[in-house]
Amino acid sequence: MNYSAWFAAQDDPNERYPLTEVVYYSKSGGLLEVQHNMDALRQRSAAEWKQLFEGRWMRTSWPYGSGVWGKKEWVCPEIEDKNIVSMFEGGSNLFWADRLGQEIGVDDLWIKMCGNSHTGSFKDLGMTVLVSVVKQMISDGKPIRAVACASTGDTSAALAAYGAAAGIPTIVFLPKGKVSIAQLVQPVAHGALVLALDTDFDGCMRVVRDVTSHPDSGIYLANSLNSLRVEGQKTVGIEIVQQFDWDVPDWIIIPGGNLGNTFALGKGMQMMYDLGMINRLPRIVCAQAERANPLYRAYCNNWNYEPIAAQSTAASAIQIGDPVSIRRAISTLTHFNGVVEQASEQELADAAARADRTGAYACPHTGVALAALIKLVKRGEIKKSDRVVVISTAHGLKFSRFKVDYHEGALAGVQSNFANPPIELPADVDAVRRVIAERMG
Amino acid sequence: MNYSAWFAAQDDPNERYPLTEVVYYSKSGGLLEVQHNMDALRQRSAAEWKQLFEGRWMRTSWPYGSGVWGKKEWVCPEIEDKNIVSMFEGGSNLFWADRLGQEIGVDDLWIKMCGNSHTGSFKDLGMTVLVSVVKQMISDGKPIRAVACASTGDTSAALAAYGAAAGIPTIVFLPKGKVSIAQLVQPVAHGALVLALDTDFDGCMRVVRDVTSHPDSGIYLANSLNSLRVEGQKTVGIEIVQQFDWDVPDWIIIPGGNLGNTFALGKGMQMMYDLGMINRLPRIVCAQAERANPLYRAYCNNWNYEPIAAQSTAASAIQIGDPVSIRRAISTLTHFNGVVEQASEQELADAAARADRTGAYACPHTGVALAALIKLVKRGEIKKSDRVVVISTAHGLKFSRFKVDYHEGALAGVQSNFANPPIELPADVDAVRRVIAERMG
Repeated sequence: MNYSAWFAAQDDPNERYPLTEVVYYSKSGGLLEVQHNMDALRQRSAAEWKQLFEGRWMRTSWPYGSGVWGKKEWVCPEIEDKNIVSMFEGGSNLFWADRLGQEIGVDDLWIKMCGNSHTGSFKDLGMTVLVSVVKQMISDGKPIRAVACASTGDTSAALAAYGAAAGIPTIVFLPKGKVSIAQLVQPVAHGALVLALDTDFDGCMRVVRDVTSHPDSGIYLANSLNSLRVEGQKTVGIEIVQQFDWDVPDWIIIPGGNLGNTFALGKGMQMMYDLGMINRLPRIVCAQAERANPLYRAYCNNWNYEPIAAQSTAASAIQIGDPVSIRRAISTLTHFNGVVEQASEQELADAAARADRTGAYACPHTGVALAALIKLVKRGEIKKSDRVVVISTAHGLKFSRFKVDYHEGALAGVQSNFANPPIELPADVDAVRRVIAERMG
Repeated sequence: MNYSAWFAAQDDPNERYPLTEVVYYSKSGGLLEVQHNMDALRQRSAAEWKQLFEGRWMRTSWPYGSGVWGKKEWVCPEIEDKNIVSMFEGGSNLFWADRLGQEIGVDDLWIKMCGNSHTGSFKDLGMTVLVSVVKQMISDGKPIRAVACASTGDTSAALAAYGAAAGIPTIVFLPKGKVSIAQLVQPVAHGALVLALDTDFDGCMRVVRDVTSHPDSGIYLANSLNSLRVEGQKTVGIEIVQQFDWDVPDWIIIPGGNLGNTFALGKGMQMMYDLGMINRLPRIVCAQAERANPLYRAYCNNWNYEPIAAQSTAASAIQIGDPVSIRRAISTLTHFNGVVEQASEQELADAAARADRTGAYACPHTGVALAALIKLVKRGEIKKSDRVVVISTAHGLKFSRFKVDYHEGALAGVQSNFANPPIELPADVDAVRRVIAERMG
């Protein structure tokens, strides 16, 4: 029995397509999901899988040194190794947040630094899969000219970087005048065709769907409808367990916007459970910004979901009012005895600042997750002795403006409780000694 | 025989100090260097060292998963594991720059992405050693209150982050008004005491030396005079060889400013050679910005060195006219059959842009190294079949302004030959299709 995977319609598992087919929706218009031949995977015992994954971990044998491709059979088994476009994804530091944990009352706190990566965000985990499948399609003779997405952030950066490495043209659509060139500099630098349209973000989505909808267009759609990315993103949970020598943490906290990653986290953990690699599941916390909290509202209302209009938040990547993966995420959270928590702008900014002071370097989304943690600890839901992992989704270096504004006291509507501005002094040794004595005691 | 290391005076190897002593200069005022008990290290065979290093590589057993501490016996053998302050340094992607190599005529080109790290630069490799030694000193009862440096960039970021993680106070000195808060946001966020002095950079250096000079000050000096950092930085070359399954590349190209890292690269390679791990040495190229090129001038003048006044360059971290490690670097380069090359602002900016278009994300210093490579290939010194590694010293995310300016055609004195600005369009599918057809053919 061979390892294999395919797209299946959510509403009809018998409606199947190869992963290398250009198809985005099921016949009924629903999402497609990647399914694996679990019987084939069960031919190897849990111990054998662990041994295989350990043996490949961060090694030089192509492409298995990548944290994603080291688990190739679980991710995308049928792709040829020569078509894999990899930049050594995963294997990021599981940072022991000892000092922060002590401050907030958790003895065993860890931050998974997914932003410590080629493009600075955890989107690399999924994009390596999508771009590799595209390369396989091109190698198979499919007439693909380019890969496109509508995105203002991490997705476009990752798509453009992987496309550039592979020599596959990429196209990024975004609303004109609404995105600064600083936000766009990664796709611009990576040579994407960056199209600034005279419309809003939804208008961009409409245009990109129109442009890619015709099978003859030769332009493949890479946005979050595309379930290939979930297969890479799901390795984050597997990797966390591996980094604890196959021990399952009590809690995993992940920021949520479009919610594909909450689903992906659960999918990876469930696969480990189904294949006997772990014998219990962690509880999952999805953390949302208060200003973009449709899932939190549903959670508080017996999972009755209604889309909202998201308001502006510093956690820009999760500023989404009507998440694509809402149904899948609710299903994941109910299965994982999950919790949804929210964070105000004040809470997320202060939480990020506290993490930075103790050695992490948190993006605003990580701030949302940390703020949720602090609330759950305060009300006793997360216990002092629990092992907790917070997933940090991007490198703080991507959010210099946010940090500068915080420490200058210029973040709108936020009081900078942990600001640490520079102190100006004459170039005088005594003056310097005085300030040091005041500060250091 | 125990593994051990100590500070030795350059001019008198019998003048020795423990690594945990607060000492910066030899009696004659020269630099101190870390020496290892090589006889002790020779007790293990080359094959045994390789096996040990492989077995630890990126694993979970503290602190050996770090690329630096996985080689602890070679770096800082006598420190206690509980005092090591590590954020999983090293193990960064050795990026196969296949497309860039094809463009410029090298078949086997690799970029070592050292900026893919906790603080976004290769300074993490050295700072983990320095801060760990400080933690050991404090644990030994030494009255250290803080660690200080004068730096406007990567060094202060790394010092502040490692200090924050360890709970050791840090102090950063910088010239008031000459550094933007964006450049400073890492030490500010990590809670360093940031002192902006009313003087220039040399003035800051004088103050920091004065403040730290008295043994009772309790403030340890972390700048590039301190040779502890070299012990961590030297692992970069060892790691490159390990990532090639212990094969030595023909060339390693490194950008050079203060030149401690050129020396460190050579030190690590020589140690491998002396312990029989490799049987030949790579050639080393030190790449300088034309506007800060004292080493290049010396190279062109039979190694007769004279300090210069460095001019402003986009490669700000190597904008140094009188390098601290000039003598050690010249000695390294002569020993490694080295070459020094320089890059103009135009050359470094275009080289970085070409790397970005092909999947890397180069900082200006990496641009200098790539520009040097292009020149050496053009004049036939580096051959098409040579295996070449370029050391990328920082993540491109630290240099968004440089990249934005380049693609907007706003980089002073530079023609943006590879600019890729966004294209503005109406939200019209036909207009979009037209532009795509023009660009993609």
